[in-house]
Amino acid sequence: MSKRAKSSVVVTDEACHLPAETSENFRDQLPRIVDAIVESCHDKETVDHIDAVAIPDRESVIELIDDLRDLLFPGYFGNQEIDRNHLTYHLGSEVNVVFEKLSHQIARAIRHECHRSEIICTHCLNRSQAEALYFLEQIPGLRKSLAGDVKAAYNGDPAAKSFDEIVFSYPAIIAITTYRIAHELHIRSIPLLPRMMTEYAHSITGIDIHPGARIGENFFIDHGTGVVIGETTEIGNNVRLYQGVTLGAHSFQTDPNGSLKRGYKRHPTIEDDVIIYSGTTILGGNTVIGAGSIIGGNVWLTHSVPPGSHVVIEEPELKILTPKEMKRDI
Amino acid sequence: MSKRAKSSVVVTDEACHLPAETSENFRDQLPRIVDAIVESCHDKETVDHIDAVAIPDRESVIELIDDLRDLLFPGYFGNQEIDRNHLTYHLGSEVNVVFEKLSHQIARAIRHECHRSEIICTHCLNRSQAEALYFLEQIPGLRKSLAGDVKAAYNGDPAAKSFDEIVFSYPAIIAITTYRIAHELHIRSIPLLPRMMTEYAHSITGIDIHPGARIGENFFIDHGTGVVIGETTEIGNNVRLYQGVTLGAHSFQTDPNGSLKRGYKRHPTIEDDVIIYSGTTILGGNTVIGAGSIIGGNVWLTHSVPPGSHVVIEEPELKILTPKEMKRDI
Amino acid sequence: MSKRAKSSVVVTDEACHLPAETSENFRDQLPRIVDAIVESCHDKETVDHIDAVAIPDRESVIELIDDLRDLLFPGYFGNQEIDRNHLTYHLGSEVNVVFEKLSHQIARAIRHECHRSEIICTHCLNRSQAEALYFLEQIPGLRKSLAGDVKAAYNGDPAAKSFDEIVFSYPAIIAITTYRIAHELHIRSIPLLPRMMTEYAHSITGIDIHPGARIGENFFIDHGTGVVIGETTEIGNNVRLYQGVTLGAHSFQTDPNGSLKRGYKRHPTIEDDVIIYSGTTILGGNTVIGAGSIIGGNVWLTHSVPPGSHVVIEEPELKILTPKEMKRDI
Repeated sequence: MSKRAKSSVVVTDEACHLPAETSENFRDQLPRIVDAIVESCHDKETVDHIDAVAIPDRESVIELIDDLRDLLFPGYFGNQEIDRNHLTYHLGSEVNVVFEKLSHQIARAIRHECHRSEIICTHCLNRSQAEALYFLEQIPGLRKSLAGDVKAAYNGDPAAKSFDEIVFSYPAIIAITTYRIAHELHIRSIPLLPRMMTEYAHSITGIDIHPGARIGENFFIDHGTGVVIGETTEIGNNVRLYQGVTLGAHSFQTDPNGSLKRGYKRHPTIEDDVIIYSGTTILGGNTVIGAGSIIGGNVWLTHSVPPGSHVVIEEPELKILTPKEMKRDI
Repeated sequence: MSKRAKSSVVVTDEACHLPAETSENFRDQLPRIVDAIVESCHDKETVDHIDAVAIPDRESVIELIDDLRDLLFPGYFGNQEIDRNHLTYHLGSEVNVVFEKLSHQIARAIRHECHRSEIICTHCLNRSQAEALYFLEQIPGLRKSLAGDVKAAYNGDPAAKSFDEIVFSYPAIIAITTYRIAHELHIRSIPLLPRMMTEYAHSITGIDIHPGARIGENFFIDHGTGVVIGETTEIGNNVRLYQGVTLGAHSFQTDPNGSLKRGYKRHPTIEDDVIIYSGTTILGGNTVIGAGSIIGGNVWLTHSVPPGSHVVIEEPELKILTPKEMKRDI
Repeated sequence: MSKRAKSSVVVTDEACHLPAETSENFRDQLPRIVDAIVESCHDKETVDHIDAVAIPDRESVIELIDDLRDLLFPGYFGNQEIDRNHLTYHLGSEVNVVFEKLSHQIARAIRHECHRSEIICTHCLNRSQAEALYFLEQIPGLRKSLAGDVKAAYNGDPAAKSFDEIVFSYPAIIAITTYRIAHELHIRSIPLLPRMMTEYAHSITGIDIHPGARIGENFFIDHGTGVVIGETTEIGNNVRLYQGVTLGAHSFQTDPNGSLKRGYKRHPTIEDDVIIYSGTTILGGNTVIGAGSIIGGNVWLTHSVPPGSHVVIEEPELKILTPKEMKRDI
């Protein structure tokens, strides 16, 4: 094209950082590279998943979460209008689809764990269907929980215009819905799948809730980016968090041989009716925030406070320089 | 496969947490579950969207944002090269597509609101087309605004290599472009759609700008994750923010009956030529950051500062323990 | 539908904010709008990409990252089970696909840069294939590095259940994998593509690592949302970061004519075996965190500390008000 020729500068190989072998047919070298990569799969120092059974795959997990949101909030996320006459048909068909997909992914997660642990499990299919069924039984209860969370958002955020806006667009609802789904699977000891679900929600909301956390009714997180809720956190009813709140571990215990201990309670307990403002960090398995407390923003808290406490930082001294002082200062 | 049989351990039902009912045909139980979920839709304690008109759907909203970005930055986001000869054809076809999609989603948003408010609106289609047209009229102006934002990024970030890199990859440009689109719809009182748009941008950038905020020219946010800009924030020209900055509400006013007041100014005003460094929180509807001020990182500010101020925290006392001291300390 | 008629309220044009021109055929006005947008493309004050060569496109870059992850962690991300017998075929086919895609995107990135700089490059295709080949040669080495990162995650996080869970679901692994890919292209001076890759990872993980940063072995970031690692950061081996850590620039140098200087070292150096807890900010090109140091959470550090230091904030004074005191206080 003439427009590409409008300059007469010619680039030398050097200017292009051109490697020496340009004259070869590059594709001829690919088999050598393939061999090197195959070789690297025999190396104990690398990580692969070869000769292992199929695993829950990320795309199916995302699809499953989307389908489950449609069951949990009927009529919000599909493309069609749903009226009461067709509700049974619609939900009936959705429930069947979710049963198939969920039991399939549970089976993959269980089988994967069994195989990795060198155990034969002849019951994977049966168990996965039983677990999927058990999960579906929880849907009406989950719907009530989530309605409480939506109402908590409306009552906690002056910018909220309607329940619909909250269900459609609030990241907290995505994160809490996904957490409540994942937690049900987590307490049934389904491996892998719950964490894949909450990490998907983390990726689209910036809210990182471990499926092992225990969270009460009417929970709300405003804005949400940067929130971390650790595996052994316990949260009561009517709790509200803001962006950047960490409920984390203070320090890790190690075995006598120096490797990390896992599973013990290392994240805090937040009792009923607590509000925690943005950027605050609360650490430690023995830390209890008493019921009805208000924890201000940017607080760093590693010990318990009694019910009804109001914790704020002494506002750090600020230096405010006027333009005149700034000139002297710089 | 023989590789699955390499262990002789046999898993008992118990080891698999196998529920009792394994011998049943699980699918026989699905209709009972469907009934329970349908039942839950008659419960006032849950949230659904049944017997309601169709709503803006998330996928179409995302598609619309992508199409609009192509109109706002011609040639950057499509797959084809655009030359000046074909520009009119290309933009002509794009404008038609956007008109159809945008008026369709606006119509859904308006109708949804009307129906939810139990009002009949016979003018939805007309209004939605008029609004789509009005929006498209704003495109040339928006293009100028966004060019200013791109230049502000280049002038504010030493890591920026070119305008192209900024348009292609900077999260701030996605967030600000989406905000400027959504704000135009917000000031026309289009419901639902603007917030869905900015929450989509929030999900992919970690930058949460409410469509109601008012933001001047040449605006830049570096890195951006965790930034929150509330509904009634006002930002002047040539303002630069860094990651983790919150422009938020200090406390909420309630009606005499205890429910939240909505809509009043509760977020700060940032005048022209202000820089706010990472992790800083500025709160309150009466808080005004005077023109030309520089607010350092990690500041917590709930009151106004005069023009030209330079606000920094007195660096908090740090304990620095050398290894020798650490031994004594632990 | 009768359900839409259940209210007798009729909306006036005014209530609908209906613009005056409703009776016109709105589509008739589109050509005028198209002309205005075309016009705006001749305006020096706007940004477009017209008469420029095709560019790396976001969707292909995402696809490429996904394909590369499959080469780097064989068997984890596909849909099929891979056994050792088929490994060579599988990887052979993948390597060919990646070679085509990668050299195509590199060619677009190089050509784009050349064209923008008004230089003719007759060697784009050759160079892009040579670069793609060079990159593929690094795969076995990258696999070792990444295995070290996975192990560092397991050894650094008590909530980690298995290597598989980490590879499947940890955002740090997505961010670090993408960074290690992008860094290889960055040091070969491939334009645009590396930053597009890391910004994609930023958008799904909240972790913003510039491809220019230099990062050693066994690197781990827990939770990760809000982490920023600047262009000229240097990080040693066995370093662990938590969410919200910024390794940034302190202030920018300008040329005599006032424009930003680019490329000089302005981000800190973190030596081997350092841990940096959540919310901490470390700034400046001359700041060196000595080997084996532990930097506590919420620290703001703009100067070097010697090896083996343990830096914590003096916990800011907290005001803890009991309910009785709160009444007096409010």
